[in-house]
Amino acid sequence: MTAQEKLTEKNNGQKLICVGLDSDINKIPPILKSESKPILNFNKAIIEATSNYAAAYKLNFAFYEKAGAKGFDLIEETIRLIPDEVLIIADAKRGDIGNTSQMYASAVYDYFKFDAVTIHPYMGYDSIAPFLEYKDKLNLVLALTSNKGADDFEKLILIDGTFVYQNVIKKVNQWNTSKNCGIVFGATQSEELSKNIKLFNNLPVLLPGVGAQGGDIEEVIKLFKANNRLNLLINSSRGIIYKENSSKFAEAAEKEIIKLNETVKNILG
Amino acid sequence: MTAQEKLTEKNNGQKLICVGLDSDINKIPPILKSESKPILNFNKAIIEATSNYAAAYKLNFAFYEKAGAKGFDLIEETIRLIPDEVLIIADAKRGDIGNTSQMYASAVYDYFKFDAVTIHPYMGYDSIAPFLEYKDKLNLVLALTSNKGADDFEKLILIDGTFVYQNVIKKVNQWNTSKNCGIVFGATQSEELSKNIKLFNNLPVLLPGVGAQGGDIEEVIKLFKANNRLNLLINSSRGIIYKENSSKFAEAAEKEIIKLNETVKNILG
Repeated sequence: MTAQEKLTEKNNGQKLICVGLDSDINKIPPILKSESKPILNFNKAIIEATSNYAAAYKLNFAFYEKAGAKGFDLIEETIRLIPDEVLIIADAKRGDIGNTSQMYASAVYDYFKFDAVTIHPYMGYDSIAPFLEYKDKLNLVLALTSNKGADDFEKLILIDGTFVYQNVIKKVNQWNTSKNCGIVFGATQSEELSKNIKLFNNLPVLLPGVGAQGGDIEEVIKLFKANNRLNLLINSSRGIIYKENSSKFAEAAEKEIIKLNETVKNILG
Repeated sequence: MTAQEKLTEKNNGQKLICVGLDSDINKIPPILKSESKPILNFNKAIIEATSNYAAAYKLNFAFYEKAGAKGFDLIEETIRLIPDEVLIIADAKRGDIGNTSQMYASAVYDYFKFDAVTIHPYMGYDSIAPFLEYKDKLNLVLALTSNKGADDFEKLILIDGTFVYQNVIKKVNQWNTSKNCGIVFGATQSEELSKNIKLFNNLPVLLPGVGAQGGDIEEVIKLFKANNRLNLLINSSRGIIYKENSSKFAEAAEKEIIKLNETVKNILG
């Protein structure tokens, strides 16, 4: 199955939630810390508790890289724990000149075997092209991000009255000839989301920013429903994986994603 | 010594060249491939041959990440081979929301002990702020890159007639209160370089794109000299490390950087 097919299958089953594995040794339940592989055991428990309900998992590379090679091993070991039908996203925000992006694409797709990756648009087409060579994958380009800093450059206004981020969306649509592109759009940016959703066309959308960052999941789902679009992933990281800090953290994560799926079902009907 | 002090010391000694360790198993001399650690041995030979002449080394993360955890080990092992007085740059092009960028900063500075890192500006101030907390380091933000794709977004024209990348330079100047910021500006962008050099103020500049990418090193040095600025690094990767494909690759790299340093000296006088 291609990455887009996996996403469609999950979305058709009203599964929209992406579980962000921002697993941090300083935040996992203390009970795990005496074990030999605390983060791996944490990820394993979270995955076992949530994989029946999740549309995708997103591994935030920064949380692993800070442990160097051990962190990269942990990414590999974590990927092996995720059932094949669930999409796995490398939230790595890569992007560089052509011959370098080729290596980054090879890292996430050939080495780690991810289904999708997040990409910085700043350096333009040839920095993204090597990722697009992987026809079965999903290349999720940052459009408008969920953080305050999105105002600094993403929302600069061009001479034609459009925002920088709108030009990213336009270009990604043009680059989508193999139907392997998508965009990242912050769930916190509700006004911009509703104004721009028609620009997305058929691009799948990864929406981070619900939960800890303050985005409203119900508002997001209603908007996509109203626009007859069901090709999206709503990411929640801290809101699911750190729901409880006790030995019951996995059960709490399971309850939370079930609750989120019910919210989805109630709105989609 | 802070990263800026290391750079100043090298620049005062008329050393401007940054050696890019874009070390690729498919491009290193065949004679090394039968060894147990071909890339490490390649890097070791290159570093031993060039460290008396180099201002900095730049490790392009992509080339290491494609080997997963082994690649990260290789980064660590390579860093240990570089003399302390030579600047070491993580060409990782990172950048994410605040709590994630904090982890990326920790990876390059606390774990790997780099002196500097390259950063994507797209997500704005709070994506860069965690790097700025490291006062002794150099945080090199992408302004105008050396590739063709720079036209897609970096050169979009804003409503006030400025380019997107000029707004990045302006903001980086504002963020430079701890004197630990710099910019990346493609050496291939000669017209823009000459038009914008006054905007750089005291920011150190990393200039990739000479050699394989076509930038003209003499033109770059003359321009900086004419503007009384000597706070820069000119990167050459393929042009130095792959100068020869025989067993004499290290000697060839040494000859090449000596030649580049002579070019620098001839112009600076």
